[in-house]
Amino acid sequence: MDMHKIGETLQKVREVNPLVHNITNVVVTNFTANGLLALGASPVMAYAKEEVADMAKIAGALVLNIGTLNETEIEAMIIAGKSANESGVPVILDPVGAGATAYRTQTARKIVSEVQIAALRGNAAEVANVVGENWTIKGVDAGAGAGDVIALAQKAAEQLRTTVVITGKEDVVTDGAKTYIVRNGHPILTKVTGTGCLLTSVIGAFAAVEKDIAEAAVAALVSYEVAAEVAAKKTVEEGPGSFQIELLNQLSKVSAADAAQYGSVEKIAE
Amino acid sequence: MDMHKIGETLQKVREVNPLVHNITNVVVTNFTANGLLALGASPVMAYAKEEVADMAKIAGALVLNIGTLNETEIEAMIIAGKSANESGVPVILDPVGAGATAYRTQTARKIVSEVQIAALRGNAAEVANVVGENWTIKGVDAGAGAGDVIALAQKAAEQLRTTVVITGKEDVVTDGAKTYIVRNGHPILTKVTGTGCLLTSVIGAFAAVEKDIAEAAVAALVSYEVAAEVAAKKTVEEGPGSFQIELLNQLSKVSAADAAQYGSVEKIAE
Amino acid sequence: MDMHKIGETLQKVREVNPLVHNITNVVVTNFTANGLLALGASPVMAYAKEEVADMAKIAGALVLNIGTLNETEIEAMIIAGKSANESGVPVILDPVGAGATAYRTQTARKIVSEVQIAALRGNAAEVANVVGENWTIKGVDAGAGAGDVIALAQKAAEQLRTTVVITGKEDVVTDGAKTYIVRNGHPILTKVTGTGCLLTSVIGAFAAVEKDIAEAAVAALVSYEVAAEVAAKKTVEEGPGSFQIELLNQLSKVSAADAAQYGSVEKIAE
Repeated sequence: MDMHKIGETLQKVREVNPLVHNITNVVVTNFTANGLLALGASPVMAYAKEEVADMAKIAGALVLNIGTLNETEIEAMIIAGKSANESGVPVILDPVGAGATAYRTQTARKIVSEVQIAALRGNAAEVANVVGENWTIKGVDAGAGAGDVIALAQKAAEQLRTTVVITGKEDVVTDGAKTYIVRNGHPILTKVTGTGCLLTSVIGAFAAVEKDIAEAAVAALVSYEVAAEVAAKKTVEEGPGSFQIELLNQLSKVSAADAAQYGSVEKIAE
Repeated sequence: MDMHKIGETLQKVREVNPLVHNITNVVVTNFTANGLLALGASPVMAYAKEEVADMAKIAGALVLNIGTLNETEIEAMIIAGKSANESGVPVILDPVGAGATAYRTQTARKIVSEVQIAALRGNAAEVANVVGENWTIKGVDAGAGAGDVIALAQKAAEQLRTTVVITGKEDVVTDGAKTYIVRNGHPILTKVTGTGCLLTSVIGAFAAVEKDIAEAAVAALVSYEVAAEVAAKKTVEEGPGSFQIELLNQLSKVSAADAAQYGSVEKIAE
Repeated sequence: MDMHKIGETLQKVREVNPLVHNITNVVVTNFTANGLLALGASPVMAYAKEEVADMAKIAGALVLNIGTLNETEIEAMIIAGKSANESGVPVILDPVGAGATAYRTQTARKIVSEVQIAALRGNAAEVANVVGENWTIKGVDAGAGAGDVIALAQKAAEQLRTTVVITGKEDVVTDGAKTYIVRNGHPILTKVTGTGCLLTSVIGAFAAVEKDIAEAAVAALVSYEVAAEVAAKKTVEEGPGSFQIELLNQLSKVSAADAAQYGSVEKIAE
């Protein structure tokens, strides 16, 4: 993927200031809204079934996150998702905790069966559980071999006819036709809650301005993770509290040039 | 308005430590609670219909915010509002997103028709939608001419028999009889989620200790926005993450003397 | 209590990385999750009645917090609590605001009557209201005499057959048989929302790795409050915003040696 396109897509997010409609979990709402604002997008949270169809259709992207789901919210997610589908608004799903309880797995599967999603973003275990693959979590989420993660991502992309983003030590992005590995980020991201959820919403912001969803996702990953690298360099000695705040600062600062210069993206031969 | 009264009202908030009962949206709960604590008020969030009447009647003010409304919460807001009305507790309404969806507009109108509110705080588009005025959003929320915002505020104040606070580049406060313009604050406030919602709750804290609601609102705006100016001066180069934290710091520090010295308030001739 | 055991228990939390299932209030979810992550535990929030039994039984501890309760959540808390009881998972209850409204008092009593809790953590007024004792709040939560608080804690421990932790200027921990006073912490903790709620969840993390719940609670209090002391020393001049962030930093840094060296624990003669 052309590294300049990554920077251009970031720039486009800031110019377009896309409305990102989030139906997300109660742990990360504030952080997600502040992260999107810092980056240059326009977040809105709206959850009531009476209004989600109206909000989703005027949004640039709809992000569904099942981190603290309940029956009422699932109903709202389906309504919002169908409305987004009708209006051509891309829908991004974060299946938080799929596999941890049967309810989460079933809910994630219900959403992908009723809503055409543009992208699925999770760790390897979550994605495997959504598509019904066996996945043994071996200490770290991505397991031992990155090759398995690529195969999993490609299988999920084909099965769901969507772009799949599996994050971990290395990130895999594939739409079934083309596949990328992104090697940016920092381990301290795992010490702050909601950094994965915010990334999913950032993918939404990029998908709002770039029709090739796999390229939008790569640009989102690189922009977000390069910002995280700078934030980590400045705060890793202080601790996760300072990192959380500095990540917001750096999301407002990361430039097209930074993304192009520090992004580490490999396209996998087909 | 006497600038010394602004400082005295701020001082009174810190002495009285008023209980502010918030029924607010899930994005801003933590930030609202921390902002009120920093300022010297005592926040409580209580949403269950079984307890909101009890909580509202012992509070110094009740703040209703429809940012992530649902049927259950609307019912609780009405119950709490009526209880506050019966006990003479001022009710402040923040009609977040009125106009964005029909459901939000209808809900805001339902609340003002069933509860006598002491103050309405929103941007120009939100206030216009609550009172059924046409308002074209032209890029920025307040539109081109500040004169229109004053007319809108005065019309809304008359129609709802309440104090109206319209925030934007300049803020307008009016109770129909007297009208003020406040020129404080900083653009970075728009880069942190919940700064408007917190301001509404701060107006609640001031309304708990000052019966003239328009003067309470002016004192709240000046105190809050002067704190924001100091915070912005210290952190605008760092970014919105640092500003969010420094705003909490400065809310704990802004003094009566600061408010009187740096407040910029103009009373409009009648 | 052996001060070395405090440090060893903290170390064990970091080694075991226990899953702490929280059903908590909307004000503190993000801060609670980040505090647990910083300390070295693994937080999960899950609230739906369809999944809480599954989640609670695989957790190291279940923390119930009634800060913004509603009927749906109470039902989920009871289901989760019973599941935890069946699987031997310790349940920690934070009866936020018991006494403030009849609904909260009744809910707290309902939970302790249907779920066997391992620890109750609140201020003196909250604990008194749970067990039906008269308690006059005299400005500060613990009242004039620490002696009364000890008697209250012991009575509550006997009545509920649980460990009781009453926090205030001094903290009292008792399981009925042995009683400790902990004298750590800093007043600025009361200027940040959710510091008490997070402490309750931290007690959960310690109870997940130490079967003697009173000793787990003492180790949790010391570790948390020593971290708060260091954070306060660094940030008290800046204000509560900075303290909130630095507390997260220090929770990631507080060492077994710090806890042993700076912990102030007195065992009360029986």
